[in-house]
Amino acid sequence: MNAGELRQGVARLLVVRASGHATDRQRRYPRWELSNNDLEQLLNAGVGGVILLGGTATELQQRCRTLQRWAGQPILLCADVEEGVGQRFEGASWLVPPMALGRLHRRAPQQAVQLAENYGRCCGNQAKRCGLNWVLAPVCDVNSNPDNPVINVRAWGEDPHTVGELTGAFQRGLAATGVLGCAKHFPGHGDTATDSHLELPLLQHSRERLESLELQPFRTLIQEGVSSVMTAHLLIPALDEQWPATLSANVLTRLLRVDLGFKGLVVTDALVMEAIAARYGAGEAAVLAFAAGADLILMPADAVAAIDALCDALRSGRVPMARLHDSLERRQAALQSLPLTLDSSNNDHRIETAEERAFSLELVTRSLEISNSSTAIGSIQAEASTQPNPIDGINLIRVDGVLPCPVLPADAPAMLLPKALGLHSVLSHPLGISPWADPADPLAPLALDRLGNGPLLLQLFVRGNPFQANRSMREPWTDAIKQLIGLNRLFGLVVYGSPYVWEALSALLPRSIPAAYSPGQMPDAQQQLLQRLLNPDPSPALSTLGINEFTD
Amino acid sequence: MNAGELRQGVARLLVVRASGHATDRQRRYPRWELSNNDLEQLLNAGVGGVILLGGTATELQQRCRTLQRWAGQPILLCADVEEGVGQRFEGASWLVPPMALGRLHRRAPQQAVQLAENYGRCCGNQAKRCGLNWVLAPVCDVNSNPDNPVINVRAWGEDPHTVGELTGAFQRGLAATGVLGCAKHFPGHGDTATDSHLELPLLQHSRERLESLELQPFRTLIQEGVSSVMTAHLLIPALDEQWPATLSANVLTRLLRVDLGFKGLVVTDALVMEAIAARYGAGEAAVLAFAAGADLILMPADAVAAIDALCDALRSGRVPMARLHDSLERRQAALQSLPLTLDSSNNDHRIETAEERAFSLELVTRSLEISNSSTAIGSIQAEASTQPNPIDGINLIRVDGVLPCPVLPADAPAMLLPKALGLHSVLSHPLGISPWADPADPLAPLALDRLGNGPLLLQLFVRGNPFQANRSMREPWTDAIKQLIGLNRLFGLVVYGSPYVWEALSALLPRSIPAAYSPGQMPDAQQQLLQRLLNPDPSPALSTLGINEFTD
Repeated sequence: MNAGELRQGVARLLVVRASGHATDRQRRYPRWELSNNDLEQLLNAGVGGVILLGGTATELQQRCRTLQRWAGQPILLCADVEEGVGQRFEGASWLVPPMALGRLHRRAPQQAVQLAENYGRCCGNQAKRCGLNWVLAPVCDVNSNPDNPVINVRAWGEDPHTVGELTGAFQRGLAATGVLGCAKHFPGHGDTATDSHLELPLLQHSRERLESLELQPFRTLIQEGVSSVMTAHLLIPALDEQWPATLSANVLTRLLRVDLGFKGLVVTDALVMEAIAARYGAGEAAVLAFAAGADLILMPADAVAAIDALCDALRSGRVPMARLHDSLERRQAALQSLPLTLDSSNNDHRIETAEERAFSLELVTRSLEISNSSTAIGSIQAEASTQPNPIDGINLIRVDGVLPCPVLPADAPAMLLPKALGLHSVLSHPLGISPWADPADPLAPLALDRLGNGPLLLQLFVRGNPFQANRSMREPWTDAIKQLIGLNRLFGLVVYGSPYVWEALSALLPRSIPAAYSPGQMPDAQQQLLQRLLNPDPSPALSTLGINEFTD
Repeated sequence: MNAGELRQGVARLLVVRASGHATDRQRRYPRWELSNNDLEQLLNAGVGGVILLGGTATELQQRCRTLQRWAGQPILLCADVEEGVGQRFEGASWLVPPMALGRLHRRAPQQAVQLAENYGRCCGNQAKRCGLNWVLAPVCDVNSNPDNPVINVRAWGEDPHTVGELTGAFQRGLAATGVLGCAKHFPGHGDTATDSHLELPLLQHSRERLESLELQPFRTLIQEGVSSVMTAHLLIPALDEQWPATLSANVLTRLLRVDLGFKGLVVTDALVMEAIAARYGAGEAAVLAFAAGADLILMPADAVAAIDALCDALRSGRVPMARLHDSLERRQAALQSLPLTLDSSNNDHRIETAEERAFSLELVTRSLEISNSSTAIGSIQAEASTQPNPIDGINLIRVDGVLPCPVLPADAPAMLLPKALGLHSVLSHPLGISPWADPADPLAPLALDRLGNGPLLLQLFVRGNPFQANRSMREPWTDAIKQLIGLNRLFGLVVYGSPYVWEALSALLPRSIPAAYSPGQMPDAQQQLLQRLLNPDPSPALSTLGINEFTD
């Protein structure tokens, strides 16, 4: 293998990041997303994979064709579409988070397993239609820690049995479409309270505990024949006192390859993440991961530096050349397993079939949890106003951010339906004027004089979002709810996202106050939840609003 | 002509509205944008044109191909891309509003004319690359009324000479690309203070005044050979005491066709607009417009009702059949004038060339107006803090709305650059918690205790936006600026958009306070303006922020 071949071979192992948009200026994260010039050069130099984020499904179709053409050879095209392709690419199906099925599994395990299989099939088929050949899912982490800021509702459950059953079913559905899957984040990221996007979490469990909990779903997925496993940026002293899992030969080679017998592709989590990038540097992190047993290097902080460093390590004998051959062979095998029809050039078919649309709505329906829907509204209404309608009150919506806010299009049901009752929307978000009293007052945390008068419907969009850490946990919603109940002003409570926030807050409510929970935050979930919460009788009141217009 | 041929011929005259997105659920205005099923049926039934809005340039390329295929015959594909294709379709060039060149024309008329011609060429070439064949521009209205809520900075100037020179130049540039243009809104919408999207404005001018002002630019454009003229929803008693211009034979036939000698296509403004739709109904409005002299019916409130009513009117002899033949002939002539290469199926070329990118940046540079950029910052800074950096203060940004907010991506320079100085961003928008004192206090209108301490940079995004009426005018920014000056807390003032708001507010400032204006609101304008306002020396301070990353 000459220097040029070596360099090309090494480049094949990289999976670099691109926006799904056509132009450089449309990139949402230009610090992480390569420019088109850089992408074209790297693909031309042999880079073997691209992870995509952002843009619409239609743009993604076009984008995949362009990247494939720049590469001039089959490449891996992947995305973190854990919750349906529509989670990342508008126009495709946006599914409720996996934890919704984990909760359903408690009362209807067979149904949950069947839905999980359809979930995998839906992700795979839509990925394929968009031009992707590798879905970076399922998350196999057992969310045993409710404070987990980064896994949370992305997990399929809170115990290894549930997660194993559901991720296994997802994988079967995905495999049936021919698209590659990825079990992540090995050896298990469910019991961390630190966001590895920001720092390196520590997992202080014994090997026995890991065997009985964290590793179980990965064993299941390996039995199911999952194509790839993604590593976690975690320090687990019981497995390796020095190296985080992503860089640990003990974890990737001894545990994953030898003990668990995994024969597919091992891919790192994004090396650009602070837990790794800040400590080791772009080139050295790639070499350490590769030496430890990773086949593919995802999102190196600097692709050229990673290629240089890997070439040096192979030439110097620091990493044996056989490792390169093995990794390239595994990559080739994965690409050859793909059906020939995968990269469709026919973009006329719809991205979401009617059956998939119905499936996404069914998932919403089955995951809603409604308490005390009707009676209380009548009583507050009677107190608030002599006329039954409209109520003059507030619809306070808490979101993580508004620039942009995918859960709130301008015609979001979370605003339109309460508006029809006379509740005007007020958004609470990090860039807005604060709704909290200053100085803080535990007995009256909400500055109600800023928000207006009348009954208040509180809708919280809150889930453990990467990079957001536990921001929502620092907001005193518990005290705010007590304050509103004390003033007899709480019209209702809705939580979209975190079951933990829902359980903590709904426990505070008397039976007379309507409340509801949806694991999904998308407009479809708002629509179904509020229709049932605000208008439990199938009366014509809401149907006259034309609210069906925007959900077909 | 049998019944089927008649129906098909009539359908050709309609231009219906579609979203630029691929799927129904992505529509932003589902009340106005037809579903894909309806679109396919209507195009199949012979509907001859589509106006598009929303989505990215890449989606638009795909969308135009799909619509063209559904039609099975050449159709008119148009959009309101008055300020560049990027104004409506992300990824293409988003240009400063025409009024920027109107202002430049005062001090550098030749340069302004040259830029206007390039402006038209840029719109035409990018429209063509996206699959559009008809640009609904230039706006030929003379913005003689600063309170105009709907034209405002969309106009090319405030006097007929400037508007005529610049729109003529735009039209020459556009015509060179082969794309059809549209002079609007005939006979002139510049002197109205009512938004015709919401009600019917009244124009109480004599025929002589109309001749000397409103009609001038239209005469110029007709001489330049503009392909189409769009009608205004205005009541002008001097021309027609009964009918608004869109429905007036006096205006469309006697004035436009006979007196001005226009031989091209006359297209109505959107018939769905309240000024027309609410008064006459979908079918009757179409018949009245057609009978008055319109060739094409834009956005009828109900396409099928419009076709039915037009067929009835022709069959009954209420409108002579010759009118149909004439309109179809004019439509056919326009389509035949298009170059054959117009609907390109090659979507590999970039949507924006490097030259066009440079042009869009040049327009920003030439339209910036900066006062008192540097010294004051130093002095407030010294008072506010013993350290030179960072200042602990507020960056208050006023926008029309945040769901969505195209001018403020998450990494908008309007937030990033002030943040680097220590000014944290607070957004004021209609759905947020109000920044105003309650009850209102003319001496202290801003509730500063809600906003925080320290110097305050005020950035107002304000222009006359359709449907927004004069919302911004009802906000007491004049008093707020006096309040901040009185407290020595005004760090600086920036206005993006309206020259009228800029002139009114900047007149309040002492020379010591930095202030700047940009007609354009896009991130490129924020970047250039704030770099010059906050950092007048080309020192390395800002270049270390990586702020160039997101503007290439």
